[in-house]
Amino acid sequence: MNKYQEVATEINNYIIEKNMTKGDKLPSLTDLIGYYKVSKNTVIKALDVLEQQGVVYQVRGSSIYVRGHHRKGYVNLSDVQSFQHIFREFHLSSDIIELKEITPPENLVEILELKPDETIYYLKRIRFIESRPFCVEESYYNKTYVPYLNEDIAHKSIFDYLNKDLKLNASFSDLFMRIGKLNLEEANYLKLEQNDPSLNIESIYYLNNGHPFTYSLIKYHHEEAQFFVQGNHF
Amino acid sequence: MNKYQEVATEINNYIIEKNMTKGDKLPSLTDLIGYYKVSKNTVIKALDVLEQQGVVYQVRGSSIYVRGHHRKGYVNLSDVQSFQHIFREFHLSSDIIELKEITPPENLVEILELKPDETIYYLKRIRFIESRPFCVEESYYNKTYVPYLNEDIAHKSIFDYLNKDLKLNASFSDLFMRIGKLNLEEANYLKLEQNDPSLNIESIYYLNNGHPFTYSLIKYHHEEAQFFVQGNHF
Repeated sequence: MNKYQEVATEINNYIIEKNMTKGDKLPSLTDLIGYYKVSKNTVIKALDVLEQQGVVYQVRGSSIYVRGHHRKGYVNLSDVQSFQHIFREFHLSSDIIELKEITPPENLVEILELKPDETIYYLKRIRFIESRPFCVEESYYNKTYVPYLNEDIAHKSIFDYLNKDLKLNASFSDLFMRIGKLNLEEANYLKLEQNDPSLNIESIYYLNNGHPFTYSLIKYHHEEAQFFVQGNHF
Repeated sequence: MNKYQEVATEINNYIIEKNMTKGDKLPSLTDLIGYYKVSKNTVIKALDVLEQQGVVYQVRGSSIYVRGHHRKGYVNLSDVQSFQHIFREFHLSSDIIELKEITPPENLVEILELKPDETIYYLKRIRFIESRPFCVEESYYNKTYVPYLNEDIAHKSIFDYLNKDLKLNASFSDLFMRIGKLNLEEANYLKLEQNDPSLNIESIYYLNNGHPFTYSLIKYHHEEAQFFVQGNHF
């Protein structure tokens, strides 16, 4: 992690600890420099990161304010984070329905930029929050970047496994969302009725070299799915 | 518009005109500086903006590549833009159901940071794309910033009216989304059945001084709503 990212994390923690809410003013640039004992440039970069994350906003020629309009229980789609991180206050669990190596369907050859004859990992699991079914997830892993996967890893955070063990960092992602209808199998998993609506999100995750390494299609329980997006006008 | 924003727009137009797609390499920094006759700093800032918008990605120590993974017909929620801009290739229209001044409901007093006794504009309209019903929109405007609104303006782009006539620029927005159920009235507007699902998005728009000036609740037709979100990991 770069110094400015560390400082961004520290400032974010400060905001949380102080229970700061929308419109609250952050300490001045000079104060932040003194407090974290880093250069002016580092603090400015840290604040830019926090602005991009939607944590603060900067009023030109004025001060830095807390933006923090997040609602509890809403998942921030603009920030690539693991479920473990997003729902860190809750008990998470998952049931693995299937984990196997497969020949990728044609659309995934293109999306994951695969070579002919490459196989990929396919994982299907049900994810629970506080034992309530939250979503049915199907994910596909490019074996060039994720050469190994097992049920034990799939039960925990694959995101953490990729990050910490494989040193793979998702740099950005593309999310496509629409409303779908559950088939009978999915409805059973989510304790809903067949043809009930679901919020379907397709995600493609990219490494910092621009290569896609994972694709997932998640069908969210229509009563549990609450999402937050930060819009920016440039 | 700042110089770097102009250059960002120019580079974006270049990408569109050249039909560049994911992984295509942009001209070098030196070439861009020469071409747009601006400083290195301006080009770097322009590229940062385009990276934040999800238009390009930069590989460290290497080059700048086109990210461009948008799908046709998907609305980019990460970018605050008018429907007129998003659907510029299509014919848009709207039916105004109601436009009036109201005493704001309690939750909006907080969300729009209103003073006691302030009234606000309330607008309800159905929006159509190529004459197909797309969404039912209820929006609320803080009269401090939007002192005047009429049916003629509401038929066109309010976003453009705010921008061009009132010189109000939405700087950022918070979007909250979940699946809802249509009541009979809404279902009739959208040519659907009562209790059919809808994708409901609440949006709060902020000026660059951090003040909220508009709140809207839009219920999207479940077959027409397709959204795109850019995730970033910082």
